[in-house]
Amino acid sequence: MPRHSLFIPDLPRAGESLTLTGDEATHALRVKRLRTGDRVRAFDGAGRVALAHVTIARRELGLEIDSIERFDRLVPAIGVWSAVPKGPRVGELFEHLSQVGAASWTPMNSGRASVDPARAMTNAKMQRLARISIESMKQCHRPWRLELNKTRTFGDAIHAVGGTAIVLADCSGKAYRATGAGRIRLLVGPEGGWTKDELAAAESAGAAVSSFGPHVMRIELAAAIAAATVLDKEQSRRDP
Amino acid sequence: MPRHSLFIPDLPRAGESLTLTGDEATHALRVKRLRTGDRVRAFDGAGRVALAHVTIARRELGLEIDSIERFDRLVPAIGVWSAVPKGPRVGELFEHLSQVGAASWTPMNSGRASVDPARAMTNAKMQRLARISIESMKQCHRPWRLELNKTRTFGDAIHAVGGTAIVLADCSGKAYRATGAGRIRLLVGPEGGWTKDELAAAESAGAAVSSFGPHVMRIELAAAIAAATVLDKEQSRRDP
Repeated sequence: MPRHSLFIPDLPRAGESLTLTGDEATHALRVKRLRTGDRVRAFDGAGRVALAHVTIARRELGLEIDSIERFDRLVPAIGVWSAVPKGPRVGELFEHLSQVGAASWTPMNSGRASVDPARAMTNAKMQRLARISIESMKQCHRPWRLELNKTRTFGDAIHAVGGTAIVLADCSGKAYRATGAGRIRLLVGPEGGWTKDELAAAESAGAAVSSFGPHVMRIELAAAIAAATVLDKEQSRRDP
Repeated sequence: MPRHSLFIPDLPRAGESLTLTGDEATHALRVKRLRTGDRVRAFDGAGRVALAHVTIARRELGLEIDSIERFDRLVPAIGVWSAVPKGPRVGELFEHLSQVGAASWTPMNSGRASVDPARAMTNAKMQRLARISIESMKQCHRPWRLELNKTRTFGDAIHAVGGTAIVLADCSGKAYRATGAGRIRLLVGPEGGWTKDELAAAESAGAAVSSFGPHVMRIELAAAIAAATVLDKEQSRRDP
């Protein structure tokens, strides 16, 4: 099995070759010390995963693509909209969502949030999360990168476009029940919980209020547990 | 709602009072600046949760117990046996298991483990995890502390006492199906996976090989996702 993975957005076809430059090449040569003949895995982040082998000439990292496999997106596509945890915990949240197979993350403002996403989600932080989505994709072998969206409000969250089911995580709900929806928007609140108005508005908008555990969880774990539970139950329903 | 929680192993009865000393008292007085009349929540870590109010006299922290509620252990009791993650990630694992409602954690040796639990689980680390179980109990309001066991081997893991169902997390399995077992031992391997011999031995011993997600997860998240999924499905089966 290849012992190293690369992110190559513009993967050529099987049988073709390319020369890799930039950070990925430097890391592969200096840290991972790849040599001619080594096999690697390359991800384009949009469903294609290549097996390739290395050819090093004049200190440049060449790759010859041996084969390419194309993967569909996971079904259902789970878009997690959540409150933003403090400091480095937002990186953990994003990394967790990548590992469990969520499709995207949208930072969301809500009444009891202790972190204002408009202030917290700086350009530097957005760039850090984009790097995390690449590293995590390679580590957990997910063919599609976790998408990162701009900050939205709770009001936006409960107005989903047609065909998207809305699920709101709250301890007042019952265990999640699979519905067969192809697109699911999963709302995870701050550790202080939702306001009464938010809960009422979500129920009016048709959201399924669901509980994902007996105890209070931190946002970065709650969001991952909820996304994993929804995915597991929906996939079990499709493929019993 | 009380804004501060305390760990008091020997909780007196409702109507009684006590004087608190040690770290919990110092933290409550100097950091949280509790004052006479403040309401607090107190956990004994073994199912009892008290509401109490503070009486400060001569710089000593007194508590008068207003009421006590007793909670049963969660059913099923999920004992997680897992490989040990590197460095501080073992603290994250333990903290995650506490939040999702596992009953206990047992560090486990296995063929492809990159960390030897016998070396990694020093007395200092065991003490750090014991402190995490107390802080997490207070934060996530779990009436029972997450138990920490001594290191065992994979051979021990697949020999469960009567009435304990064994579940082994592996991507080769199908989605977990609830069985109604009251005690479940959940085995989570290292990131390199199980050896063929381990998988064969687990199946011979009657373990249910189950998959808990489409991607490779780090131990500290995989264990939490698996425990949460098993608990959710078992509880849904009991209380549909």
